[in-house]
Amino acid sequence: MHLDKINSPEQLKKMPVKELPSLAEEIRQFLIESLSTTGGHLGSNLGVVELTIALHYLFDSPKDRLIWDVGHQAYVHKILTGRKSQFGSLRQYEGLCGFPKMRESEHDVWETGHSSTSLSAAMGMAAARDIKGDQHRVIPIIGDGALTGGMALEALNHIGNERRKIMVILNDNEMSISPNVGAIHNYLGKLRTHKHYHKIKEEVEFFLKKIPSVGGAFATAAERIKDSLKFLVVSGVLFEKLGLTYLGPVNGHNLDELMECLRQADQAEGPVLVHVVTVKGKGYLPAENYAEKFHGVAKGYKLESSKEETKSSTPVKYPKIFGDTLIRLAEEDPRVVGITPAMLGGSGMNEFASRFPDRCFDVGIAEQHAATFAAGLATQGVKPVLAIYSTFLQRGYDQLIHDIARQNLNVLLAVDRSGFVGADGETHQGVYDIAYMRCIPNMVIMMPKDENEFQHMLYTAYRYDQGPIAVRFPRGSGLGVDLDKELQELPIGKSEMIRDGNDLAFLAFGTMVPLAMKAADQLARDGIHAKVVNARFVKPLDSELLNRLHQEGTPIVTIEEGSAIGGFGSAVLEYYAEQNIYDMQVKVLGVPDYFVEHGSVEEQRKEVGLTVENLVQTGRKMASCQRQRV
Amino acid sequence: MHLDKINSPEQLKKMPVKELPSLAEEIRQFLIESLSTTGGHLGSNLGVVELTIALHYLFDSPKDRLIWDVGHQAYVHKILTGRKSQFGSLRQYEGLCGFPKMRESEHDVWETGHSSTSLSAAMGMAAARDIKGDQHRVIPIIGDGALTGGMALEALNHIGNERRKIMVILNDNEMSISPNVGAIHNYLGKLRTHKHYHKIKEEVEFFLKKIPSVGGAFATAAERIKDSLKFLVVSGVLFEKLGLTYLGPVNGHNLDELMECLRQADQAEGPVLVHVVTVKGKGYLPAENYAEKFHGVAKGYKLESSKEETKSSTPVKYPKIFGDTLIRLAEEDPRVVGITPAMLGGSGMNEFASRFPDRCFDVGIAEQHAATFAAGLATQGVKPVLAIYSTFLQRGYDQLIHDIARQNLNVLLAVDRSGFVGADGETHQGVYDIAYMRCIPNMVIMMPKDENEFQHMLYTAYRYDQGPIAVRFPRGSGLGVDLDKELQELPIGKSEMIRDGNDLAFLAFGTMVPLAMKAADQLARDGIHAKVVNARFVKPLDSELLNRLHQEGTPIVTIEEGSAIGGFGSAVLEYYAEQNIYDMQVKVLGVPDYFVEHGSVEEQRKEVGLTVENLVQTGRKMASCQRQRV
Repeated sequence: MHLDKINSPEQLKKMPVKELPSLAEEIRQFLIESLSTTGGHLGSNLGVVELTIALHYLFDSPKDRLIWDVGHQAYVHKILTGRKSQFGSLRQYEGLCGFPKMRESEHDVWETGHSSTSLSAAMGMAAARDIKGDQHRVIPIIGDGALTGGMALEALNHIGNERRKIMVILNDNEMSISPNVGAIHNYLGKLRTHKHYHKIKEEVEFFLKKIPSVGGAFATAAERIKDSLKFLVVSGVLFEKLGLTYLGPVNGHNLDELMECLRQADQAEGPVLVHVVTVKGKGYLPAENYAEKFHGVAKGYKLESSKEETKSSTPVKYPKIFGDTLIRLAEEDPRVVGITPAMLGGSGMNEFASRFPDRCFDVGIAEQHAATFAAGLATQGVKPVLAIYSTFLQRGYDQLIHDIARQNLNVLLAVDRSGFVGADGETHQGVYDIAYMRCIPNMVIMMPKDENEFQHMLYTAYRYDQGPIAVRFPRGSGLGVDLDKELQELPIGKSEMIRDGNDLAFLAFGTMVPLAMKAADQLARDGIHAKVVNARFVKPLDSELLNRLHQEGTPIVTIEEGSAIGGFGSAVLEYYAEQNIYDMQVKVLGVPDYFVEHGSVEEQRKEVGLTVENLVQTGRKMASCQRQRV
Repeated sequence: MHLDKINSPEQLKKMPVKELPSLAEEIRQFLIESLSTTGGHLGSNLGVVELTIALHYLFDSPKDRLIWDVGHQAYVHKILTGRKSQFGSLRQYEGLCGFPKMRESEHDVWETGHSSTSLSAAMGMAAARDIKGDQHRVIPIIGDGALTGGMALEALNHIGNERRKIMVILNDNEMSISPNVGAIHNYLGKLRTHKHYHKIKEEVEFFLKKIPSVGGAFATAAERIKDSLKFLVVSGVLFEKLGLTYLGPVNGHNLDELMECLRQADQAEGPVLVHVVTVKGKGYLPAENYAEKFHGVAKGYKLESSKEETKSSTPVKYPKIFGDTLIRLAEEDPRVVGITPAMLGGSGMNEFASRFPDRCFDVGIAEQHAATFAAGLATQGVKPVLAIYSTFLQRGYDQLIHDIARQNLNVLLAVDRSGFVGADGETHQGVYDIAYMRCIPNMVIMMPKDENEFQHMLYTAYRYDQGPIAVRFPRGSGLGVDLDKELQELPIGKSEMIRDGNDLAFLAFGTMVPLAMKAADQLARDGIHAKVVNARFVKPLDSELLNRLHQEGTPIVTIEEGSAIGGFGSAVLEYYAEQNIYDMQVKVLGVPDYFVEHGSVEEQRKEVGLTVENLVQTGRKMASCQRQRV
């Protein structure tokens, strides 16, 4: 009813306050229904319905800058800024982005997808405002989980020190993606228990007035006590010590209280932190109760049930293989330890965590620490397995170079979500890891062609004791192949010849192997016979294979689901140049030099030519090269 | 006298406590004299003499793990663990490393060079200890500056939460490298003012006993007040809130007090933080007064003077050019802003900071925040110039990809200390940035051949408004060339042909141009005529040049002071493969695939073959390739 009339914050502002709660309910219903078709981040958006309404009702976006940390909770913001009608295309190819996107709306002033960037961005925008002499609000909205990220703490430190006017909204929903950990979380937990803080405060103030006035050091101490009350009672001491005025906690689902608190905050000088307590999945019971599961929902969940529809025929997912193999290794070897930066469920480690609680470490959103913590474990002869998404390993890059690889420590990196990630889009694409890891000395880098090889690679990496080793693997399901019962150790740096042929060679890395096989099938029908090589390793390279291909004069097509700059194909080119071999025909297929947006993995691959069709076409050209030469 | 007899912690432990102060003085004299010959980090080591003695006196290294954050303050530790006689070779090629080095001693249990890693390492070692059922101490020693690094805060959070036995030594010397900033620093500053905290505490406790006992909420409030006293008076509240028992502050130069405090800390359960206040440069007045200057001293400083010897003929240093050019740009354009993560002096920004205090941001050791803060500024039309060392940009890698490049923001990256860095060695080598930046979409990457071109490149980058642009430049001095008065805008992606020749082409990047010129001179004497191209850009490449070289059939030697994997040479190889050009002879010279240790830049270049001799040899081979082909 209301929602149909709201296509901009201006229209929202015209609504009477008393009607806002029913608008909130309409938004909830809309989200629940719309996301049942498209999928998307349901729980986190249900949690910020009132908060988003309040921010747009009270303040003036886009003049006032609303900066959504992580960004997947910006759906309500998108609805209120004229994009409701596009929700049918949410996270789909060429459709509405699942994160803030500047080109969609002037109300999206900051793009993100990774956590903990909003405070730094806010500090930048506030400094720019002051330098330019502008007047407007800067309002980052950050979750309690994101606050454990080191860069958020770096930014808080800077914000507290510079004392520019910034209104930090702490959206405390008690969990980020998996239940987060760490002392800050515990601290927030204690805060939430102070239900009667107003009452306590009054009593203490009354009591303090009875303290006799005294001079000197004694008086100072008494004053200090009084000063400390504010810290003591509302316990905002952590943020106040960092230089931010603390307000709250306030119920994030009570619009009156929330708006009153935001108005107060707006009066504060310098930086202020508003502690808003919300419930993830608020208003939709299954999402409220199973917040982690509903963090990102796949299409087709049933509204009345907490269970996602699963097809029994779906091949097993890579994280499941990872989790199961980790358990097998941990059962046999007490040195095996698992580490995740806040992705326990996503990484398939829930069962491992319950089986081996003393050897499972969820360190929160803290990739830098996760990597160096793994290094520290490895110096003591423990065998750390760091499960980390390719896109988030970027956050631990210096730690990978400086702490893990430079000390040549036995850290096993399980690099999840490598290659295209589908609906999460450009912020999450795992396409740089080959290039950024390959230049690091001491690294071994591999990727399996299927889920069976994946378990063998994990075992191989576990057995390897010469330094860091990375197994990258894709998002989603395997191919449905059978799993060997026995784990096998694969020879380091050796490829697997899957199909022979003399006209050209497809050197395929990981997920690209099945495509190369299909392309070879098609080419064979035209009488063109392609070798198909499962590369397995990009570092070290299989030099024996490359030498043989040179001796045979076979043209090469390399294929990888990663940046074509600096990746596997470049490694092959570098190898021949190093060997003074200047007559090889090598064609490199990979992800081109731009940020590929959201869509399905298939659509993303198609967009960049990582398809059977393109392989066939390229293979045909390369085979004819050879014939001309011969 | 004492020092000659101390070659191990065991020998130290046999000394009477009362003789330790004179040992400390001997160590100070030794450091001051020894470093006057070799150079090295004087101030930070003078600051931890007593602390290091106390730690080795009371605890049992290497069974107990001493983890030195940053690591440049481990000289005293090295002296006390049998390496005094090697100090004549400190930071020299094949000599004693300026940082902890496992292969030097079993007492070096963690290697570092970058800041803020010690707490993560300690958490790893403590977890490994507990998993293995071992019993020993884990003692990270971290400076207050390093504490602003996000990963240290991530680790503190984890340490506080898990409550394992770890003794964190906070070495608070009021500055890291340049006077550090941020709220944590302010907070520590307030702490230090509580000179009489013991006395205050007693008075307050006396006063509290007079409070009448009351029941219910009132009593609770009173109890809270009492609890808060500890926080209030010693102000360790920040760390206590994070779950660490706080002890101190204690005078880090009074051995009795220090050892008493460390003994107390050793009795604590779970993690404890000992706040030790030290004076950087303690005992050597010039170093005490000019701590930043003496952070790392070059060889040949005079003991009686605070002034380094400078030869008047020394060419101007790159940071000076950077600082001067930044001022020129800032004078003309109020949008220009400078950012440094704690390297104000090192980056040549001191004068800029005093001229433009409102547009200069030293954010502390916080590279992640620095990068995204720059991105935030850029979204508002401000022109941020982020001065950052190549090796430290690794810390802001995700922010460079996800925040700066993905949003295609106009951030100017001044990537200092690119290439070999000399005495700091493997932890600080700036040799990965070409590879790790080149795979990022939207990046422009350049490097000047000399200091004059450097100022033009900075101007070019300032003028560029199509996205992020990086100017990498080397450590140290320029070539001594004249500086043009007018700043020039160079065409993006265009190289400079410096010398013509038909037998081969040297494509040299940045610092390698002068070497290529010399090599071409030598080859000319043998009748081999080499082109010398100043590449200027590795991204975008000069495709016109590469096409012309192909048309002419000229063999190419690429030369760069960066990883040969994924670098400039690979870019050239990729270009030809992409163009279906398979008959080019390209030889790639760069830094090979291992961590190059400390020494002079010349020695490091020689070790890896980035020398005129190797260029001549390679050029000769490549020229003969061509002749064979023709």
